[in-house]
Amino acid sequence: MSADTKPAGRTILASTIAKEFVDEITAQLTELKFKPKLVGFLANDDPAAQMYANWTGKTCEGLGFEYELIQVDKNDLESSLIKANKDDNVNGIMVYFPVFGDNQDQYLQQLISTEKDVEGLNFMYYHNLYHNVRFLDAPYNEQKCILPCTPLAMVKILEYLGVYNKILHYGNRLYGKKIMVVNRSEIVGRPLAALLANDGATVYSVDINNIQQYSRGDDLLEKRHKAVQLDSTHTVESLAPTCDVIITGVPSDSYKFPIEYITNGSVVINFSSSKNFPDEVKQKAGLYVPSIGKVTIAMLLRNLLRLIKNKNHRISKGEQQA
Amino acid sequence: MSADTKPAGRTILASTIAKEFVDEITAQLTELKFKPKLVGFLANDDPAAQMYANWTGKTCEGLGFEYELIQVDKNDLESSLIKANKDDNVNGIMVYFPVFGDNQDQYLQQLISTEKDVEGLNFMYYHNLYHNVRFLDAPYNEQKCILPCTPLAMVKILEYLGVYNKILHYGNRLYGKKIMVVNRSEIVGRPLAALLANDGATVYSVDINNIQQYSRGDDLLEKRHKAVQLDSTHTVESLAPTCDVIITGVPSDSYKFPIEYITNGSVVINFSSSKNFPDEVKQKAGLYVPSIGKVTIAMLLRNLLRLIKNKNHRISKGEQQA
Repeated sequence: MSADTKPAGRTILASTIAKEFVDEITAQLTELKFKPKLVGFLANDDPAAQMYANWTGKTCEGLGFEYELIQVDKNDLESSLIKANKDDNVNGIMVYFPVFGDNQDQYLQQLISTEKDVEGLNFMYYHNLYHNVRFLDAPYNEQKCILPCTPLAMVKILEYLGVYNKILHYGNRLYGKKIMVVNRSEIVGRPLAALLANDGATVYSVDINNIQQYSRGDDLLEKRHKAVQLDSTHTVESLAPTCDVIITGVPSDSYKFPIEYITNGSVVINFSSSKNFPDEVKQKAGLYVPSIGKVTIAMLLRNLLRLIKNKNHRISKGEQQA
Repeated sequence: MSADTKPAGRTILASTIAKEFVDEITAQLTELKFKPKLVGFLANDDPAAQMYANWTGKTCEGLGFEYELIQVDKNDLESSLIKANKDDNVNGIMVYFPVFGDNQDQYLQQLISTEKDVEGLNFMYYHNLYHNVRFLDAPYNEQKCILPCTPLAMVKILEYLGVYNKILHYGNRLYGKKIMVVNRSEIVGRPLAALLANDGATVYSVDINNIQQYSRGDDLLEKRHKAVQLDSTHTVESLAPTCDVIITGVPSDSYKFPIEYITNGSVVINFSSSKNFPDEVKQKAGLYVPSIGKVTIAMLLRNLLRLIKNKNHRISKGEQQA
């Protein structure tokens, strides 16, 4: 194989990145005196959701967690979630969305107790993410906020890949980096753009309507990123070549990111379950991560352990006060 | 005019229904030692929203409230809302949605402090509505829950029209009534169906995809309505003629409810800003309410006064404990 055809870059698999987190989770689990229990609710008959549910189950049990999949009619999901919120044997709760596929899903999302919300989907957790609030119990700072799984997984991946520069001060380690995020959902794309901006990056957040630029704002009081909409002279074509990192999450098999706009040597990551880049991207990307699911599920279980730690802090604080 | 052409039914205007609430609000306002302040945030350039904002302002000021309209760029709305949440001079906050027109609007909706949420849009208020929880501070029961304005307005209208039967026990006053609600939004249609079911009605909740039947559930522990999806043999054509009340909220000028399915003498109410019934409905309806905006705004101001009462209860409780 000649030097011309063999790409200089590397493809990094999610399993490789997940390994250190899996080891950390296993170590923490052996210190616990019980088997944490995660309950997953499936209320649609989408075979893909069923497959994902089974896969979460296998991963959980393989690592030593207890996992229960509860299949319910969507009209009974609210009552089932309330029961699980109250059940002391349940440590973590997740729902395989979409259920109704409309705003009723947001209602259900808010219904999961913040004490069991492994995916970090509650308004409070997103609010704290957007405002760089890291702890639930200031000024004690013993109970850490849960971060939504996928944005958190992306941060961990960027750390692994060396995009976060450890020589820079904590909270500033993306300073100078330009990152394009093609997806602006409330679950992943927007919180991810805010997280990266809060760490110092300039983020181009692309959705079907427009491109927004996220940067660390000057609203120091609110510790909040700044978002401005760019005018139509700014396009993927004009911005992508300036970016150090391209992240996509377009849930469509027909969408492909135009790789001619990617600068050679860039970091390229796809978090969609669809393949957003053609194989030729390996000829251009310095580091290419084709999917991130295994890191995301590691973050889910990391969040579960975090919820248990937070609970223990609350209990010991309660005992101190009693 | 012959008896054939003159309809036996009556058209009832929202202003007529609103009058007793406006009187009640005025009376309560004179007892207060200050002018309550409502702040409305407008972050889109939709002329209809601007008109609605101006109209709210005029109504507020006409009744003796202070109203401030704050126009902001949508990307600055979050920071502006946080400032208003903290501002002791602001008693109530509302946002003229849509802002982004996607799930980011739900994030913003949750951001308004429950202590200032005049529209009752917070998850907590919807949750309490769905579960028939009337007070925020059980077992003291001094602080009443806010109900979302439009569903609350509809209940008050149905009381005014005599659909609620006062001879029946409280909480059971729609017993035996069948009500069709054409709209299942999370803001109005679904909470309205739940409210009416909780009061004893059988509700057919219609949206573009299907028809659901809401009734008072047997889940007594959760005090929750029961929703089941009806199969496709149940249609508007088959169900509407059995209904005592037809309520529509379809935001489209081209939509008209098929009046041939309305039983003579039924109660017919439209809460959409579009005209969901042709004029001929007056020949069939026993009572017809063509729009409800003036009752809704009365509920908004009633909620504002309720928030102030709740705050006073919290303050006096705090002083007792101090």
